[in-house]
Amino acid sequence: MKITKKIVLEEHDMPRQWYNIIPDMVNKPLPSLNPKTMKPLTVEDLEPIFSPSIARQELSQERWIEIPEDVFNLYRIYRPTPLVRASGLEKALDTPAKIYFKNESVSPVGSHKLNSAIPQAYYNKIDGTKHITTETGAGQWGSAMSVACKHFGLDLRVFMVKVSYEQKPFRKAVMNTYGAKVFASPSDTTEIGRKMREQFPGTSGSLGMAISEAVEEAVKDPYTKYTLGSVLNHVMFHQTIVGLEAEKQLEIAGDYPDIVIACLGGGSNFGGIAMPFMRHNLVDGYKTRFIAAEPASCPKLTRGVFRYDYGDTEGYTPLIPMYTLGHDFEPASIHAGGLRYHGAGSIISQLAKDGYVEGQDVQQLETFEAGILFSRVEGIIPAPESTHAIAVAIREALKAKEEGKEKTILFNLSGHGLIDMMSYDKYMHGQLENYEVPQSLIDENVNKIEAIQPK
Amino acid sequence: MKITKKIVLEEHDMPRQWYNIIPDMVNKPLPSLNPKTMKPLTVEDLEPIFSPSIARQELSQERWIEIPEDVFNLYRIYRPTPLVRASGLEKALDTPAKIYFKNESVSPVGSHKLNSAIPQAYYNKIDGTKHITTETGAGQWGSAMSVACKHFGLDLRVFMVKVSYEQKPFRKAVMNTYGAKVFASPSDTTEIGRKMREQFPGTSGSLGMAISEAVEEAVKDPYTKYTLGSVLNHVMFHQTIVGLEAEKQLEIAGDYPDIVIACLGGGSNFGGIAMPFMRHNLVDGYKTRFIAAEPASCPKLTRGVFRYDYGDTEGYTPLIPMYTLGHDFEPASIHAGGLRYHGAGSIISQLAKDGYVEGQDVQQLETFEAGILFSRVEGIIPAPESTHAIAVAIREALKAKEEGKEKTILFNLSGHGLIDMMSYDKYMHGQLENYEVPQSLIDENVNKIEAIQPK
Repeated sequence: MKITKKIVLEEHDMPRQWYNIIPDMVNKPLPSLNPKTMKPLTVEDLEPIFSPSIARQELSQERWIEIPEDVFNLYRIYRPTPLVRASGLEKALDTPAKIYFKNESVSPVGSHKLNSAIPQAYYNKIDGTKHITTETGAGQWGSAMSVACKHFGLDLRVFMVKVSYEQKPFRKAVMNTYGAKVFASPSDTTEIGRKMREQFPGTSGSLGMAISEAVEEAVKDPYTKYTLGSVLNHVMFHQTIVGLEAEKQLEIAGDYPDIVIACLGGGSNFGGIAMPFMRHNLVDGYKTRFIAAEPASCPKLTRGVFRYDYGDTEGYTPLIPMYTLGHDFEPASIHAGGLRYHGAGSIISQLAKDGYVEGQDVQQLETFEAGILFSRVEGIIPAPESTHAIAVAIREALKAKEEGKEKTILFNLSGHGLIDMMSYDKYMHGQLENYEVPQSLIDENVNKIEAIQPK
Repeated sequence: MKITKKIVLEEHDMPRQWYNIIPDMVNKPLPSLNPKTMKPLTVEDLEPIFSPSIARQELSQERWIEIPEDVFNLYRIYRPTPLVRASGLEKALDTPAKIYFKNESVSPVGSHKLNSAIPQAYYNKIDGTKHITTETGAGQWGSAMSVACKHFGLDLRVFMVKVSYEQKPFRKAVMNTYGAKVFASPSDTTEIGRKMREQFPGTSGSLGMAISEAVEEAVKDPYTKYTLGSVLNHVMFHQTIVGLEAEKQLEIAGDYPDIVIACLGGGSNFGGIAMPFMRHNLVDGYKTRFIAAEPASCPKLTRGVFRYDYGDTEGYTPLIPMYTLGHDFEPASIHAGGLRYHGAGSIISQLAKDGYVEGQDVQQLETFEAGILFSRVEGIIPAPESTHAIAVAIREALKAKEEGKEKTILFNLSGHGLIDMMSYDKYMHGQLENYEVPQSLIDENVNKIEAIQPK
């Protein structure tokens, strides 16, 4: 039998709406809270930081959200992305399972992040924003925002975690090529940055500090707004284009997934591929399993608690109901920088609480082993983040083999690893290690947030 | 009017044959010569170095060459590649010209090189080869061969020009991830390598030395064969998949190119997109222009001579009839490493001699300016090689604007630049320069090859 390797969706079949799962959820996510009033977050609370259209979308309860024409036109540069049958991986594992992956690595910046960067830049443009600020860790989100802002004629300032700024000069060059200004965070251009540099001389920065700097600039000027690359609801909505396309492509292939897998950082990548399929569990009684692959060094679903917590380490954001390790939890410096985040967005967290999402944690060495096998049999070097999803897909395919079951597995290849070869190089030279988070460290950080829970 | 941004070809519409232009040429290319006998090259001359199937294909006079099933199946991982309407570039230039580009950067290794690596590995596999050797400069070809060899279970040894080996450790990591062994050339594993190291202590290597090392290993062992990533006829044939797909895609768009542009290194990238369209000039009297974009620092078509010359600097290869700057010509170290080659393949050279191919040379700064403009309006950072084609496309689009003509321009985006950000970084920091080759340097090198011309 001839296997169709790549299932291509025609441009005119590309979805025209994003999906918001909230109306279909059994238990709605708890509201995020304004930490000053401890009352549910309003559009007005969000507007000093985000553009009004985004603030409204963040609180939307509409099931389907129209993709604006200008966003759709930019999506067409790289979308629809291919759905690929991982026939090489199936053969290597000798599994009866059918494995498919959605290939988001074909995006011009090499990852799924552009799916939300484009609409975020667009809404800011129509709302009259002139300057955008954002933070970036590994550089994927900053690269994506750079492309999107340049397209809409918005000026972009990126606060890049200092250690990444120094270790990944080419990521910075990517952002510069697209016309963005990049600062090593903590920088001396913001008050909080200067304070951090004084307080912690020689600090290598953190995502929390970078967020604080970007937010400070946004709050200070009415024409400057902040953008975030994951965690929040509107980011999840934008990423559902991934799952909605995959659903159509699987239909072309005459298939439907028994298991959907994606790596979990803040949740937008996972939610983006999972939620469109989860709708059928909620609405039509389907029994698909959804597995969030998280690094063992940052195991929020598998070992965290469901509490209200801040989205950043400094406590500037609203209080979000989430599975969290505590906002002070500092994950070991594994190479999947995009997954080093203490909490999962509120929608994903509620769905996990209600049993619709399973977490599986994966050790670093298992992820690189999976990444190298995948490279060799499918030809694509995956991003270190995406290797987590591959590792879990391999586990499930081997389980299907053991059980002699012909399961259909779908995972998201959220990005390629061509800009992250340093980590592969280290792995091949035996310089990477596994890391088990001590329970005491989780307990300590989780206990700290008891004080900020609503009474 | 709604412009279709991306023209997608369905997998089942992918061409099933490669195109060989020789039967359609007015003047056939002169034969390559065995330098010992000075007689036209035979399959037997090639077999100590290349696998028999490849040796035969190199001398093929068939117009259409069947793409083997196994090759076709691997092509499907990333092919058909998209044809994209460069609407952002058109708008930025305010030109009446329609600009399309074929996006070969979506290949898993980020360039068109895989189109020939896959069939070369395949033919070696069916001929019983166990070990493959090759050389790589910038690393694109070595990466592509690594993927292809791993797929067919062939062991690969890559000789990488020492200066690239040291400056591009992540390129090496890409090859290692795919399972290849990489040596800094000159190495101490070959006789010629050891000789070079003795003769030129501290040498930074050259493509010529690397070729010599790879060929030495192939000649010594009947189960070891050598592969080359450009220049030769069989490589051109494999790359015609690019132009054949583009032709079908333009047909879908209801269009046909007035001008076809690609950058020129050894010629396979240029030939791959140009030759399928050139067929209609030769056979049907069409008047499309074909422009080879070459670096001003290595101007073989615009300033070289049409002579017999060696393919490598050491004189180990057959004598090839080509436009050449002389095999001793050492191009300035510009960042488009893939274009630093002294000659053009024999088919392209004959077509240029007969007036079917124009050369246009481009200075380094113009190429990076074009690359940055393209990045910002089309979202994709092009490889430094591909920026040469973009620069010429911009020139032609501006000329069309001046003349008020609605031309259709097609160029090949042979690869993305995400692994070559160092060069963009240097450009943005004002560290790159133009370079004008002194005529005396060309004369000197060209004069040297008079001695090896057939009597």
